[in-house]
Amino acid sequence: MAVSLKTQGVSDVDDLCIQTIRFLSMDGVQAAKSGHPGMPMGLAAPAYTLWARHLRYSSSNPKLMNRDRFILSGGHGSMLLYSLLHLFGYDLSIDELKRFRQFGSKTPGHPEYGLTAGVEVTTGPLGQGISNAVGMAIAGKYLAQRFNREGFDLFTYTVYVFAGDGDLQEGISSEASSLAGHLGLDNMIVVYDDNHITIDGHTELSFTEDRAKRYEAYGWFVQKVEGDGNDMVAFEKALEKAKAEKDRPSIIAFRSHIGFGSPHFQDTHTAHGAPLGDDEIALIKTNFGWDPSAKFHVPPQVYENIKPVIEKGRQFQRQQDELFARYEKQYPAEAAEIRNLLAGKLGVDLDKIMPKFDPAKPVATRSASGETLNALMPHLPLVIGGSADLTPSNNTHFKGVQDFQKTNRGGRYMRFGIREHAMGAVMNGMAVSGIRPYGGTFMVFSDYMRGAVRVAAISHYPTIFVWTHDSIGVGEDGPTHQPVEHLAALRCIPNLIVFRPADANETAQAWKWTLEYNGGPVALALTRQNVPVLDPAKYPSVVNVAKGAYVLVQQDKPDVLLLATGSEVALAIKACETLAKEGIKSQVVSMPSWELFEKQPQSYKDSVIPPSVKARVAVEAGVEQGWHKYIGDRGIFIGMKSFGISAPQNKCYEHFGITADAVVAAAKKALGR
Amino acid sequence: MAVSLKTQGVSDVDDLCIQTIRFLSMDGVQAAKSGHPGMPMGLAAPAYTLWARHLRYSSSNPKLMNRDRFILSGGHGSMLLYSLLHLFGYDLSIDELKRFRQFGSKTPGHPEYGLTAGVEVTTGPLGQGISNAVGMAIAGKYLAQRFNREGFDLFTYTVYVFAGDGDLQEGISSEASSLAGHLGLDNMIVVYDDNHITIDGHTELSFTEDRAKRYEAYGWFVQKVEGDGNDMVAFEKALEKAKAEKDRPSIIAFRSHIGFGSPHFQDTHTAHGAPLGDDEIALIKTNFGWDPSAKFHVPPQVYENIKPVIEKGRQFQRQQDELFARYEKQYPAEAAEIRNLLAGKLGVDLDKIMPKFDPAKPVATRSASGETLNALMPHLPLVIGGSADLTPSNNTHFKGVQDFQKTNRGGRYMRFGIREHAMGAVMNGMAVSGIRPYGGTFMVFSDYMRGAVRVAAISHYPTIFVWTHDSIGVGEDGPTHQPVEHLAALRCIPNLIVFRPADANETAQAWKWTLEYNGGPVALALTRQNVPVLDPAKYPSVVNVAKGAYVLVQQDKPDVLLLATGSEVALAIKACETLAKEGIKSQVVSMPSWELFEKQPQSYKDSVIPPSVKARVAVEAGVEQGWHKYIGDRGIFIGMKSFGISAPQNKCYEHFGITADAVVAAAKKALGR
Repeated sequence: MAVSLKTQGVSDVDDLCIQTIRFLSMDGVQAAKSGHPGMPMGLAAPAYTLWARHLRYSSSNPKLMNRDRFILSGGHGSMLLYSLLHLFGYDLSIDELKRFRQFGSKTPGHPEYGLTAGVEVTTGPLGQGISNAVGMAIAGKYLAQRFNREGFDLFTYTVYVFAGDGDLQEGISSEASSLAGHLGLDNMIVVYDDNHITIDGHTELSFTEDRAKRYEAYGWFVQKVEGDGNDMVAFEKALEKAKAEKDRPSIIAFRSHIGFGSPHFQDTHTAHGAPLGDDEIALIKTNFGWDPSAKFHVPPQVYENIKPVIEKGRQFQRQQDELFARYEKQYPAEAAEIRNLLAGKLGVDLDKIMPKFDPAKPVATRSASGETLNALMPHLPLVIGGSADLTPSNNTHFKGVQDFQKTNRGGRYMRFGIREHAMGAVMNGMAVSGIRPYGGTFMVFSDYMRGAVRVAAISHYPTIFVWTHDSIGVGEDGPTHQPVEHLAALRCIPNLIVFRPADANETAQAWKWTLEYNGGPVALALTRQNVPVLDPAKYPSVVNVAKGAYVLVQQDKPDVLLLATGSEVALAIKACETLAKEGIKSQVVSMPSWELFEKQPQSYKDSVIPPSVKARVAVEAGVEQGWHKYIGDRGIFIGMKSFGISAPQNKCYEHFGITADAVVAAAKKALGR
Repeated sequence: MAVSLKTQGVSDVDDLCIQTIRFLSMDGVQAAKSGHPGMPMGLAAPAYTLWARHLRYSSSNPKLMNRDRFILSGGHGSMLLYSLLHLFGYDLSIDELKRFRQFGSKTPGHPEYGLTAGVEVTTGPLGQGISNAVGMAIAGKYLAQRFNREGFDLFTYTVYVFAGDGDLQEGISSEASSLAGHLGLDNMIVVYDDNHITIDGHTELSFTEDRAKRYEAYGWFVQKVEGDGNDMVAFEKALEKAKAEKDRPSIIAFRSHIGFGSPHFQDTHTAHGAPLGDDEIALIKTNFGWDPSAKFHVPPQVYENIKPVIEKGRQFQRQQDELFARYEKQYPAEAAEIRNLLAGKLGVDLDKIMPKFDPAKPVATRSASGETLNALMPHLPLVIGGSADLTPSNNTHFKGVQDFQKTNRGGRYMRFGIREHAMGAVMNGMAVSGIRPYGGTFMVFSDYMRGAVRVAAISHYPTIFVWTHDSIGVGEDGPTHQPVEHLAALRCIPNLIVFRPADANETAQAWKWTLEYNGGPVALALTRQNVPVLDPAKYPSVVNVAKGAYVLVQQDKPDVLLLATGSEVALAIKACETLAKEGIKSQVVSMPSWELFEKQPQSYKDSVIPPSVKARVAVEAGVEQGWHKYIGDRGIFIGMKSFGISAPQNKCYEHFGITADAVVAAAKKALGR
């Protein structure tokens, strides 16, 4: 398809800027011999137009509270974002662009949160970015409701997303977009890169649905910009309408051309994911009237042309800073809360408000979690919770909370719907916007949201995953609802802290640790069934949870170690008592979090699991993978070797031999008796 | 909302049957003190109507080749399905209904494939069933194209699905429904249980999108049946139109009432997931004119009324059997192929057609996989492959194959689109329909499809997952695209066989083993980067892959063991050579599949990993979780401790210290040198 090379509706020098973005992107990919040139070339014009004329931000403070957010959901087009960041004054030198995809550069293959200033979220896994945006838009609405005052529009930001066919095909974006429409998030504008091409070829191969109609069905404001992919008059008109829209999120289907301007590869999937080659690049540059031999060239007029935009950003920053200074005087309490938000602090001493549990009354850890939320949440206005439609089961609700809805932007409870994957990504978007999110579902459905969990872990988002019904203790619902491999599958994710508390007190302490930690995602694995409450007067659970593992029943020169987590700690204690009657000294170790235990000094680890005691038994209602590290060559593991079964939970435990008697027998076997 | 208790458009005795279904379901849940009565009560009328008057099947042969399929996608309503199976003559006694959700019964909490005759797929995790149906419909179209002949309509089945709000909210169903619309699967009819209720409350809380419009956007034929949830005239009219539709899949939005007929709980989420209680049940039965004290009661007229339906099914079976007998005479070759299909056999001696690889030419295992497909696939007409839009990267295409499309039902290549989760579930649906499916994506995106992988593992579906780009060897794409935890996360799933072949020959053998195995899902983890081809003349790879692990370089009384998988086997061999120069005898073990190794007798295991050799080093470009079982207390693991980094792949390996030198150093350390 022949298109006009000239961008319509912009000045010549603006067009030069647009060309520069295209060529920097091409050159970056070519130098790396790896990457995706096609999308940056196709979207350079609308991206430049958005950044130069609409986006409100300040490159000298990439974290400016009320900046508009820009998310490149198709993170593979990262050179587009890096080119923009460089030209628009962010801390990203041309040398970094030359080191695209090289070791130690700030320009990795896909944009990474925390590594590069101006990168709002990590993108690359498709559908995550557009779903993060929903969380950022929710945060924007909530923060505006909580903090804006007459004359003080502190939070007015808009979230802009560039998304592609892959983003729209992924189920996660369907979930998140449906939620965004339901919530009427008019502070979110998606530009859909409608380029008709995927890796396999033309979109006609697999993607013939009516995307516009689908988004209308979600309740979005849908516009189309047809033409050659370079009509900025039409694009800006659509943008203005989207910005003016009150009530609905917007999507602008922008007919673009992948590999725009490439004589041989435009509108082909060849332009998607590989360098164009030196010859083709030279040809393109020549066609545009550039010196084909110049690489990573930015004409001086380009920098000159963008200078006022950068200055406008600094001015925006000054205005915002001045506004906040005045706000702080008039609303010191609110301002203090905002300062906590910016610093990722709670501003509350949790120890003073922790719940107490009656040791005489067994309680499921999911219920203890609910009680903990009842105690803490009224004091934590910047924490927002929710569930993927399992509120009564997850115990994620807390007393007196209202729903966050279109008609109630001050609500702190999210009805995510039966949309686990979106819930994960939406929470991630909230987490990078100063809101601490938690969300619940059954632990078995952590599988459904794993894509989002992984991005949280890579990016150190402080998202809290509440996963209840954490074992065959689920009982009658059967194998599809009983996790057996999930503890292993979650523990293997780097940076993810997994807690499986043994009782109500460990649960409350896990929550405390989690809320005070701001360094990455945390998962809470909680029981459906009741478990005994370990009497704090007898057991040192409260002070030790933060160490990840600790001695629950200490022995002088123990014969055998009994290691356990969660609901199986009670079995270990019972086994310990039985063994004691037979004169066998068993030391019981509760291991609520392997990850935190691994962070302890070796001396502490050795005090909990003495290297000299080789007779060890671990009991956990999950698969054994990973346990050999702790039980050693002579250890015995009591747990699951298969999927579960539909039966009352006691029967499940009995059938699979996860009982105190089995622990006793294993301990004796380990001791050679 | 008050509704008429009388079902409209059916005879009194039919209505009695419908009431019986409702009451069996209520009684089952009540007896189990656990379960979901609301949905069976709401859908008893349309379910009965479908089964009594439309569905073609034979309860005396639940596997009848051309039966219509019925899928209860919301598996939590399992008592509906069990009630139907019992009444319509399947091998499910009233006693089994009484043992709902009890240990060892055929009536588990959620329907389980393989356990209960008439259960077409395992459902419960929402969105899976409706997506499985897409695969079953694809299989129906393909089989019809391949085997039907003039006068021999062997394959004409329709796939019926009952799906709920949860199914429609889950992203997987968006993906699968979009694909179904694209493919024009007119042999699929979904009845959407539009009951306005989810667990959290009214659907208005989270789900206000226009579902009908959304499905129109996917290209479906959409109908609505309004009213009291009991208008069978309107329902059957819609059903007839859907059956007559050529070109598009159908969805009928059926306005139902959860807990239909319950004075206190109808149209409330209370009816969803808990027993109604004896008092309420008595009240309901009384309102319907039943004896409130009778439990699990089936009036004799009900059995009598359904008898002719069962007989009609047997007649259908006889017709089908007779048709196939005539077909077999006229088309013996095709009939033989069908017999293979039914028996799950390949009908080909793969050893005779295996590809050969040049030991002088390093090749990525993904490329070797592609070469293997080129060699084998032309001989395997009942295997269908595809990719989630990563065909050129996954090497899943094979020479001469055509796409399966709306216009080409004979194609054997699936363009799944960027829809990994749907791909998994669609493949599962194909796998239970006599088609052996394989599908590719990047290994890191196994996360996106894990929900479907788990159901395949629980249900032993012989689905083949081709996951390429299996480590930091991905290189420049960076941490979002480099798997590090995925081998561990997949190995921990029961019943899933994971292969990580070391070279081209191991890859081909893994394919052979996989294709000949029909007992469950298999995953192939394949490299992006080239690896050396182990010369079969020197290394015993070909004959040993099926054992899961084997000695690649044997030593008489080895000093140290070097264990490795996949691309790291080459590092182990190199380390072995270096160690040999220093007089250290290292035995190299290739471990392409832990799961298969675990199935070997202890004597074989001990021959591969001699218990007496305590100095052991494992090298794998993934996390260590699980390796301690093999390396033991004194072993050293060389691998990943964090996410990866964006850089050329050699640089990644070097940076993370996964090198032959590191293996050499670790071996010496393990030996205390």
